[in-house]
Amino acid sequence: MTEPAYAAVDWGTSSFRLWLVDRAGEVLAQRRSDEGMLAAAKTGFPAVLRSHLAAVEAPDHLPVLVCGMAGARTGWVEAGYVDTPAPLAAVLKQAVRVPGEARDIRILPGIAQRDAAAPDVMRGEETQLLGALGFEVAGEALVCMPGTHSKWVRARGGIVEGFSTFMTGELFSVVSRETILSFAVAGADEAEDVASFKAAVKAAYAAPAFAANLLFTARSRQLLFGGTPSAARETLSGTLIGVELAAGLSGVVPRAGVTLIASGRLAALYRHAFDALSVTVQPVDADEAVRRGLSMAAAAIWTKSRDL
Amino acid sequence: MTEPAYAAVDWGTSSFRLWLVDRAGEVLAQRRSDEGMLAAAKTGFPAVLRSHLAAVEAPDHLPVLVCGMAGARTGWVEAGYVDTPAPLAAVLKQAVRVPGEARDIRILPGIAQRDAAAPDVMRGEETQLLGALGFEVAGEALVCMPGTHSKWVRARGGIVEGFSTFMTGELFSVVSRETILSFAVAGADEAEDVASFKAAVKAAYAAPAFAANLLFTARSRQLLFGGTPSAARETLSGTLIGVELAAGLSGVVPRAGVTLIASGRLAALYRHAFDALSVTVQPVDADEAVRRGLSMAAAAIWTKSRDL
Repeated sequence: MTEPAYAAVDWGTSSFRLWLVDRAGEVLAQRRSDEGMLAAAKTGFPAVLRSHLAAVEAPDHLPVLVCGMAGARTGWVEAGYVDTPAPLAAVLKQAVRVPGEARDIRILPGIAQRDAAAPDVMRGEETQLLGALGFEVAGEALVCMPGTHSKWVRARGGIVEGFSTFMTGELFSVVSRETILSFAVAGADEAEDVASFKAAVKAAYAAPAFAANLLFTARSRQLLFGGTPSAARETLSGTLIGVELAAGLSGVVPRAGVTLIASGRLAALYRHAFDALSVTVQPVDADEAVRRGLSMAAAAIWTKSRDL
Repeated sequence: MTEPAYAAVDWGTSSFRLWLVDRAGEVLAQRRSDEGMLAAAKTGFPAVLRSHLAAVEAPDHLPVLVCGMAGARTGWVEAGYVDTPAPLAAVLKQAVRVPGEARDIRILPGIAQRDAAAPDVMRGEETQLLGALGFEVAGEALVCMPGTHSKWVRARGGIVEGFSTFMTGELFSVVSRETILSFAVAGADEAEDVASFKAAVKAAYAAPAFAANLLFTARSRQLLFGGTPSAARETLSGTLIGVELAAGLSGVVPRAGVTLIASGRLAALYRHAFDALSVTVQPVDADEAVRRGLSMAAAAIWTKSRDL
């Protein structure tokens, strides 16, 4: 086994991921846990990090690069924001060193859009963008990053020009668990109902103002016509994603299509949604993108500086 | 005190209201409680009704007319639906008598829109509509009935032609209590912030597809620019109501404006919203409308038939 050069950490609100990486960028070991920012704020960030570093037998001197909510005001050490228009290269330059630690631990800042009419923030996604787009992509990219709080980003030549957060994932969660519609989806199985999902995406995309009505039809349809809990769940999911796409696609879409940074089930779901609207996507795996972004930043901060 | 002619009951999901009414339509006594359909399904509908009738000293023979969720499948006795296009006069003709009760107790049906593309149901609102519009209004009415599940109704000549339910109130409740935005609104006081509310209504009306983004700005704005919890709450409320209005007002609006059937705080809120969009409203008090609707139906069922 080659020597590790650094550890890369994606520390989100509710998840923690660590990769042990060598100088060539190869992953030597990795860890995953649910000790996200919310959990670590109680048990202590240094202890959580130390336990995972010990588990992969990281040397004492090994530097660690962190992105995500660990850099929030309510996180470990506040890492601030790079303001839009934000060059992705500026993100790694503003990394904040964690004080009082013998080890060199740095946390990457987020990106802020200080526009009074459309204020917005991201933390963690900037690193995914770096991994997906690189420091200096030529041309324009329209990026969709689905999740609890989906981000739609417009970038040009390595600069994040503007972005919007949509609470799509969190809305789906509370609507399907905490409202009257929870009865309509109760007992839904894991099997996909792609036809119901695509129909809901199209209906919501065509009439986004009717979102709160289209959601309710999941219940009315069951009362009047029957229908499975799975179909009702796909209606909720498709409606919320369809409304998001109506907003995200309301501007100019680059000829190459939308860059979709997502993993697993969410990637499949959004590909169905874009497909329903006949919009081309360039898929990028989100897990890989964040790891690559952390590696690019770590290489720029440590590997190269040691080479000099 | 004159003799009571009947008792009128509005039995909703979470509230119970009873009026003791004489032949001239005058209210002799009234009761209010939170023994709605959900509570009464556990303790028993007959017992709840009996206790309130006893409290107003209703005679044993006094007939009772009920509207609302007591007629749902999960209520007391299922009262079915009148299908759209639904003459309001048909509602009282399809009242269902509760079996096994010595007293003449009847439950009014709801209205169903059996349209596969836009299925919808109402139960209770049909009686408010009857009270607000009468059996045979000439001309067209566009009616907004705000609530947990707001209804927008198009009626012409006493016939409900079509309607749409919007989960606006319930969405506001779960979004402000169960999502990350609960932190932004925590500690909001009761004082209204009409300017923030109207600004949010206008923004959402202009760009309804951005609803899930406009909601999130309540948090981003606080992070980047500060701002009170009350302003954040008004942003959530105004965004959700603005999206509802964008849908409700998307068709032809009658020259007289929108008939707004609402009471109390909700009536004030929606009047501000319509005002922000310079839309004329004809306000009708919702409590009065349901009582008047029940009285019209009761008079038609009992008073008049005894007059013959």
